Amino acid sequence: MSNAENRQWCLAERPIGRPVKESDFSFEVAPVPKIGDGEFLVRTRYLSVAPVMRNYMIDGAGIEEPLAIGDVMRGRGVGEIVESNNADWPVGTFVQGKLGWQDYAVATGKPGSLMFPIRQKVAPIATGLGVLGMTGFTAYCSLKDIGQPKDGETVVVSGALGGVGNIAVQLARLMGCKVIGIAGSEEKCRLLEDKLGCHATINYKNGTLEEDLKRVAPNGVDIFFDNVGGSILDAVLLHLNRYARIICCGRISEYLNDEPYRLRNWGQVGHNRATMRGFFVYDYEPMFEEAERVMADWIAAGELTYQEDRLDGLEMMPTALMRLYEGKNVGKQIVHVSGDD
Amino acid sequence: MSNAENRQWCLAERPIGRPVKESDFSFEVAPVPKIGDGEFLVRTRYLSVAPVMRNYMIDGAGIEEPLAIGDVMRGRGVGEIVESNNADWPVGTFVQGKLGWQDYAVATGKPGSLMFPIRQKVAPIATGLGVLGMTGFTAYCSLKDIGQPKDGETVVVSGALGGVGNIAVQLARLMGCKVIGIAGSEEKCRLLEDKLGCHATINYKNGTLEEDLKRVAPNGVDIFFDNVGGSILDAVLLHLNRYARIICCGRISEYLNDEPYRLRNWGQVGHNRATMRGFFVYDYEPMFEEAERVMADWIAAGELTYQEDRLDGLEMMPTALMRLYEGKNVGKQIVHVSGDD
Repeated sequence: MSNAENRQWCLAERPIGRPVKESDFSFEVAPVPKIGDGEFLVRTRYLSVAPVMRNYMIDGAGIEEPLAIGDVMRGRGVGEIVESNNADWPVGTFVQGKLGWQDYAVATGKPGSLMFPIRQKVAPIATGLGVLGMTGFTAYCSLKDIGQPKDGETVVVSGALGGVGNIAVQLARLMGCKVIGIAGSEEKCRLLEDKLGCHATINYKNGTLEEDLKRVAPNGVDIFFDNVGGSILDAVLLHLNRYARIICCGRISEYLNDEPYRLRNWGQVGHNRATMRGFFVYDYEPMFEEAERVMADWIAAGELTYQEDRLDGLEMMPTALMRLYEGKNVGKQIVHVSGDD
Repeated sequence: MSNAENRQWCLAERPIGRPVKESDFSFEVAPVPKIGDGEFLVRTRYLSVAPVMRNYMIDGAGIEEPLAIGDVMRGRGVGEIVESNNADWPVGTFVQGKLGWQDYAVATGKPGSLMFPIRQKVAPIATGLGVLGMTGFTAYCSLKDIGQPKDGETVVVSGALGGVGNIAVQLARLMGCKVIGIAGSEEKCRLLEDKLGCHATINYKNGTLEEDLKRVAPNGVDIFFDNVGGSILDAVLLHLNRYARIICCGRISEYLNDEPYRLRNWGQVGHNRATMRGFFVYDYEPMFEEAERVMADWIAAGELTYQEDRLDGLEMMPTALMRLYEGKNVGKQIVHVSGDD
């Protein structure tokens, strides 16, 4: 092993009622953990930061348990197995999973959302934190399972340049659909059309969403990949085709509201014999292998693009997380911890 | 043939901006129609009336085309095939289908929603207009297809004593679920518990729907069979279990509103990984045979009950329809036209 220490970022203070700051974290050095029967040791190559992490730090309303003070920060990463007492996880295997903000993590068990072997060989392993990780799997699995896209159908994606949205846009196009992206600036709309292959875009901040939808989706909407909720959902509901599918992926508009948005056109779901469905990406574990394989092939063929914003060194983790809340990152924010790929 | 004439009720005037009245219809006598190649002649036994019929009479916003002045009134009935040039439809077969308000109807084609052979032998054929017709098929097919009920799950039915609702309540119970009925009076709630086997009921007019739901569904709601929409839907959304299914069957609360009810808790669909889905009963044609067979068996076993409100004579059709809008009918309103079963 090139490093006899296990450097870690731990939770020092809860950021209640304020943004995250560097002193919320403490930098510790522990010994490299010993593995027991059936366990294996992963050396971290890259770590991911995500907005949800502040929820772990406070006694949040998240799906996952909050951290205790002193716990190693929770987070996903990609790494290489460097020691193993488990024949299913041989040394040299690359994995993505819940490594935490540290140099080394111990794991065991079957492949799944906790730890997933990276099988694809065509894209950089860091994509395991974005397009070939949970972000991409979220877009792929829900679009296929709930959306059931058919050739020539019209797909609308809200939050179309967001982490999941930008992949959903590209996947819908690659699955043979006409794709309309909704975003919040002319610049984003240009990017969506020029770089991601949207057939049309709508800047919802123009305030003419309903008319714009009528113009760019004259044949109606078959699939709505909704990352936003609220008034954008309301407008799209008026343009649903019969048997339309609404993928409830996110409700980012709601995080800014004290009171929930009151939806006017909910009756269109029944009226159009439509389906509106929520999901949780980890429920799609049986599809992860397919998602990785198919998207890796599209990346290799140059048909699926992604953008990373990379910082170097484990010591940059708090800075990387703070960049998200400051809106400084361009693309998926990751941190390079070790290795040279 | 016992009758050489074909008596018919035709549309005389459109009831725009007012209730239906007898003079909106004209009673005509035509010759019994001759059948051509592949056609068959059905003698009407019973006719159904339904609230939707006023929509046919005006230039309505319905799914189906409005009638022209002078057209025979549209409606479903059950009858017997009395002449046939089609080997698939032999004389003596009982059918339910779109007969219209008349003694005789000509039909052709394959079995389906337009004309469907009555295969069951255990229940009176008049049930083909209610529990063993589209009303019952609506409840059965959507509950099975969208609801996917599992043993021990909690099912909430709104409009629980309505035409579809009262069947949905009984079917959910027979499929092994715990059933909670929501209705608008103490008397209806008593009927639901004493006669239809609801495990619990809620009188929504008490104004304590949310607390009542918490009390009677302490383990949450797995399936919501929604005939009402609006504020009742909003309340139930707060009690959904993970992976809950909402069957969007009707939105009767909306017909009284000028402005749509603005739904507050729509985000619970995504949050709970739930499914909310609309449907149209005719899309379930492939399930009709199963629905008839299974429900007829339950009727024969005394486990599924139904209520009819019967008038006698084709001349009573306008009166029968008006009874609906006056709220006078108790159970499914039908009219006996001929025959002695």
